[in-house]
Amino acid sequence: MKTYSLLAIILLCFCLHAEDGSQLWLRYEGNANAQITANVKNSKTVDIALSELTQYWKGAPVLLEKKRTKTTDEGFTIVSDKKNNSLKIVASTDIALLYGAYHLLRLQQTGQVTENLNISQTPKYQYRILNHWDNLDGSIERGYAGRSLWEWEKLPNEISPRYEQYARANASIGINATVLNNVNANPKILTQEYLQKVKVLADIFRPYGLKVFLSVNFASPKTLGGLPDADPLNPEVAKWWKAKAKEIYALIPDFGGFLVKANSEGQSGPQDYGRSHVDGANMLADVLKPFGGIVMWRAFVYAPSSDDRAKQAYLEFMPFDGKFRDNVIIQVKNGPIDFQPREPVSALFGAMQKTPVMVEFQITQEYLGFSNHLVYLSPLFEECLQTDTYAKGQTSTVAKTTDGSLFGHRISAIAGVANTGSDVNWCGHDFAQANWYAFGRLAWNYELTSEQIADEWIKQTFNDKKEFLEPVKGLMLSSREAVVDYMMPLGLHHIFAMGHHYGPEPWCYFPNMRQDWLPPYYHKADSEGVGFDRSKTGSNAVAQYFPPLNEKYGNIEQCPEEFLLWFHHVAWDYKLKNGRTLWDELCYSYDNGVKEVRDFQKIWDRMENYVDAERFELVQTKLQIQARDAMWWKDACLLYFQSFSQLPIPYDIERPVHKLDQLQKIKLSISNHENAILETINR
Amino acid sequence: MKTYSLLAIILLCFCLHAEDGSQLWLRYEGNANAQITANVKNSKTVDIALSELTQYWKGAPVLLEKKRTKTTDEGFTIVSDKKNNSLKIVASTDIALLYGAYHLLRLQQTGQVTENLNISQTPKYQYRILNHWDNLDGSIERGYAGRSLWEWEKLPNEISPRYEQYARANASIGINATVLNNVNANPKILTQEYLQKVKVLADIFRPYGLKVFLSVNFASPKTLGGLPDADPLNPEVAKWWKAKAKEIYALIPDFGGFLVKANSEGQSGPQDYGRSHVDGANMLADVLKPFGGIVMWRAFVYAPSSDDRAKQAYLEFMPFDGKFRDNVIIQVKNGPIDFQPREPVSALFGAMQKTPVMVEFQITQEYLGFSNHLVYLSPLFEECLQTDTYAKGQTSTVAKTTDGSLFGHRISAIAGVANTGSDVNWCGHDFAQANWYAFGRLAWNYELTSEQIADEWIKQTFNDKKEFLEPVKGLMLSSREAVVDYMMPLGLHHIFAMGHHYGPEPWCYFPNMRQDWLPPYYHKADSEGVGFDRSKTGSNAVAQYFPPLNEKYGNIEQCPEEFLLWFHHVAWDYKLKNGRTLWDELCYSYDNGVKEVRDFQKIWDRMENYVDAERFELVQTKLQIQARDAMWWKDACLLYFQSFSQLPIPYDIERPVHKLDQLQKIKLSISNHENAILETINR
Repeated sequence: MKTYSLLAIILLCFCLHAEDGSQLWLRYEGNANAQITANVKNSKTVDIALSELTQYWKGAPVLLEKKRTKTTDEGFTIVSDKKNNSLKIVASTDIALLYGAYHLLRLQQTGQVTENLNISQTPKYQYRILNHWDNLDGSIERGYAGRSLWEWEKLPNEISPRYEQYARANASIGINATVLNNVNANPKILTQEYLQKVKVLADIFRPYGLKVFLSVNFASPKTLGGLPDADPLNPEVAKWWKAKAKEIYALIPDFGGFLVKANSEGQSGPQDYGRSHVDGANMLADVLKPFGGIVMWRAFVYAPSSDDRAKQAYLEFMPFDGKFRDNVIIQVKNGPIDFQPREPVSALFGAMQKTPVMVEFQITQEYLGFSNHLVYLSPLFEECLQTDTYAKGQTSTVAKTTDGSLFGHRISAIAGVANTGSDVNWCGHDFAQANWYAFGRLAWNYELTSEQIADEWIKQTFNDKKEFLEPVKGLMLSSREAVVDYMMPLGLHHIFAMGHHYGPEPWCYFPNMRQDWLPPYYHKADSEGVGFDRSKTGSNAVAQYFPPLNEKYGNIEQCPEEFLLWFHHVAWDYKLKNGRTLWDELCYSYDNGVKEVRDFQKIWDRMENYVDAERFELVQTKLQIQARDAMWWKDACLLYFQSFSQLPIPYDIERPVHKLDQLQKIKLSISNHENAILETINR
Repeated sequence: MKTYSLLAIILLCFCLHAEDGSQLWLRYEGNANAQITANVKNSKTVDIALSELTQYWKGAPVLLEKKRTKTTDEGFTIVSDKKNNSLKIVASTDIALLYGAYHLLRLQQTGQVTENLNISQTPKYQYRILNHWDNLDGSIERGYAGRSLWEWEKLPNEISPRYEQYARANASIGINATVLNNVNANPKILTQEYLQKVKVLADIFRPYGLKVFLSVNFASPKTLGGLPDADPLNPEVAKWWKAKAKEIYALIPDFGGFLVKANSEGQSGPQDYGRSHVDGANMLADVLKPFGGIVMWRAFVYAPSSDDRAKQAYLEFMPFDGKFRDNVIIQVKNGPIDFQPREPVSALFGAMQKTPVMVEFQITQEYLGFSNHLVYLSPLFEECLQTDTYAKGQTSTVAKTTDGSLFGHRISAIAGVANTGSDVNWCGHDFAQANWYAFGRLAWNYELTSEQIADEWIKQTFNDKKEFLEPVKGLMLSSREAVVDYMMPLGLHHIFAMGHHYGPEPWCYFPNMRQDWLPPYYHKADSEGVGFDRSKTGSNAVAQYFPPLNEKYGNIEQCPEEFLLWFHHVAWDYKLKNGRTLWDELCYSYDNGVKEVRDFQKIWDRMENYVDAERFELVQTKLQIQARDAMWWKDACLLYFQSFSQLPIPYDIERPVHKLDQLQKIKLSISNHENAILETINR
């Protein structure tokens, strides 16, 4: 019996120290013994701050001081008190003190503690939100890290320890809101039964400053409430929603509000009753207003009839600018199409000036190799946020058009579609954790660079040894360009496999299907060239941008080459700035993508001595898949486009190892909630 | 109706000119009009010679002259008669005139016709034989080009045009014998029913100088004749064979004799009755002697009990040297194991001096990537034939120990296991035709170099344009080293997948299986090193070779590095001549193999304008498979051996793209007679 206990203890120790990625970037080591005090009334939030610092802070004594400051509710100051050889975290709210505590620990973990700390921080956005596309059956739309974190069947009675870990991880990077369920919403989420479950989560999240939102199905009054319709102008409908809001707020007094996908991809919406987005959003806004809730109304709309899907959100929403209630915010995907490896920004940013607009990023890698490919997304986020829309002259960046500053809006927000799941390491790929992290950090402060964020993430998640840090940082920072190179360089977009979006299917075509769901709609390859003409001679989508962007994008000679085929149908023999023809450059780009991934493998394999075996091997395995996938992408796209260009692949390039017709037979049965790794290994 | 006929004619023309590889190296163009005459009695053979020259020879008038010459029966002379501005082919037999005619056409096709021709040729070997491992059910053991050429079900009534094409192709390169059926022989081949079928083939082959042999099952008197046993010393058994021989020769007066696989891999043999190979072979030799037939008795024997399979043929056959009848020849595989990408030569060559010994090569690529991999085998054949055994001092090459010259034997022979099948292009891979061609050419004259043979094959099979000839020749000549590099460099051997031998399975192990059927028996990898110690400290197989070979092979410092792991168990950190450790060199060798195949792809793709589309694409497709297979081999072997060496793969090498456990799960269902291409494509 004694032996048995000892064995159990040894096993427990082993498990605790097993590096399975479950700890994320929160790898504080124990044995701290600094003196931590607080001149503040006890609260769960303050207790957490005290507990975290007491356990993990190894520096000078820290005082948490709560007082009115100039900063916002969530801002904090960290100052050294040299006289007393101590530190103070000063803030006006409990949650801000907690943010300060996590920031102090971050400074410690990243080696940035100095003797003269004097840091003031306030978040750039009011709402920093994760959108979970989690279904009530436990599956996740576009989730690649196992099943949903929310164990709906077990709630409200059984409580997973992961709920609090999730809240803690978010708090540590300043994420303060979460939409628990899929935008393709099941009305059942609004039943009393499910609201009781939601309440449990909200109670766990609250001390970590994490506000709960729900995606709602616009048809809920009909499907759930038994009303004959869900017409937003039907007083019975509004009444139903009011009662529902009351019911929610009775359980969750600080409930955040609703996220709505309406009249989009088959979802119900006000247009079903001849009403507009304004009618729908304002009705819900009025319902939530008394409780302080907001409506995030998605602008992800497109119809098969349009000449250019990229123009539609703008065309449909611009006429409503200024007509929404002040607690409505329009949620716009970063690009005009759909979370591609690279897109120009949506023209709605900067254009919609009388209505708050928020960016929606996708942290989960629907179009970026699922959780198999190592792609650090911070450069993608940063590229979007720092794009100048020229809405009010220079420096009208997307960040400034959405943080409330440029147009003086009362509310601001930024959303990321979460990449979390039941996998032990949360995100499927250890490096996918960096994308959750980066989203949070940029939402707090978009002035951070991707390089800074990678630097601090690596130091916290792995280690700060230069021999590890520098090459791995280099790998991360070039990973997004690599995926663009091997998937869709030069502005190509949406040439993914039908449905699951894993792997290439530029040839995918069904005569009776919506054309805007098919790759040829987007690449428009023919014997002359390739690309979607969105200039004046084409769909003129460029006209939706402010000058000088419209001119720049619209002129083939001025158009940045990374967007060339997004905005232009370009001849195969068109000469690029480097002197190569378009066709040759396309070939070299794909080939370069393959080489880049192979270089990532070389970098990673050299890191074996700096990483625990578990994470080393998982990342190694996934890089191998990525290397094979890159070859697959290259061969598929080059051989397919070659059938139009009829030009040879430059002979100094590594040759295809597949035939086009073989590649066209690949049909993965991947469904969204499944882990793709097994199927891709066996491919 | 008229239009229809015209269409049919156009289609027919198209088909005739479609370059499907069916014409092999016999691509003479029509419209010749030279004057061809013969001062010789008409015969089918002479008619063929006249017909070939009349149709295709475009030079000076040719006279076929039959007269006693100093050369052997098959030798010929080609001389220019300047006075009459004509040519003479002089020989003492009809078949030799035909060989002369084909040689003249070869000179024409390869641009070697001059004004002063004066060529005398005689073949080096008496019997130049193809061994067909074709089963009576139409399957082919180790065949990768479709089904058997012999349509047994349709014979003797229906005659495929391929039978004569086959004989013509062989005659054009001097092959003069064929063993129609598998050495694992079905006794049914000796039934009257089947002998009638064989007779039809023999009649078709005869004018082309192609003698028919059969593989016989040693148990035939029992299984077919109903005798109680097949004991070679049982007079009833000998009587049965005598009657059978009489029956055969009545149908086929020039029948060549028997090929026998006895007491080998489960085949019946004299040892079943306590008799020896000598008893068995001599009994059959006595039976055939009156008819002029010979016995080719295979020395491919090995037992599971032995400490080293490589030694067994020598141990088992050397005691019998000098005891065989003079119409027995011992057929020995080129290497001591089994047709590996590289082996040292069998120690029986040169050692067995009082008995004629013949080399058996494998033209079909059982261990060389089937018909998927482009491997030009002439360098392998040449390497064996030119290896000096030192049996009678220097220049006792394998060629000279087997051509009858060194030991003054009356009969000499050389055999190649055929790679032909029902595929339109005969050999599955267009370049596999070169191996059939090279075997024939070397059997005729082993002093030809692989480079010469490749040169003339390319010129006849494709074209003689320098831009095509030189790179493709280079590709062919380096292809054998490439396959050694990516499959089993440095003397590794027999680490193939169980059974079908396609792809790597160095890990393959079943505790209850014969150890000498399992790769670990051959590579003997452990934490210290890898390789089979056949030096004095090990199995001492080196002692079977003559000095100085035994010393050279047995001394790790002197052993040629391409045989290092064949003869030695070598430490992972052993320093090779280039300064690299064994482990590193192994890694670089595999990687180099991958790179070489990718280079082949680059070379071939540049040839697109010099080749017809059909053959270009088939070869391109197969090179793609080969490139993927090379990566598979590299990853499988390096990851497997790394589990012993525990050393990193040098970091400048392209990293594996598979995990070992994934590769260990690959189980191809390839059966021997099937074309492997589909399965490997879908792998």
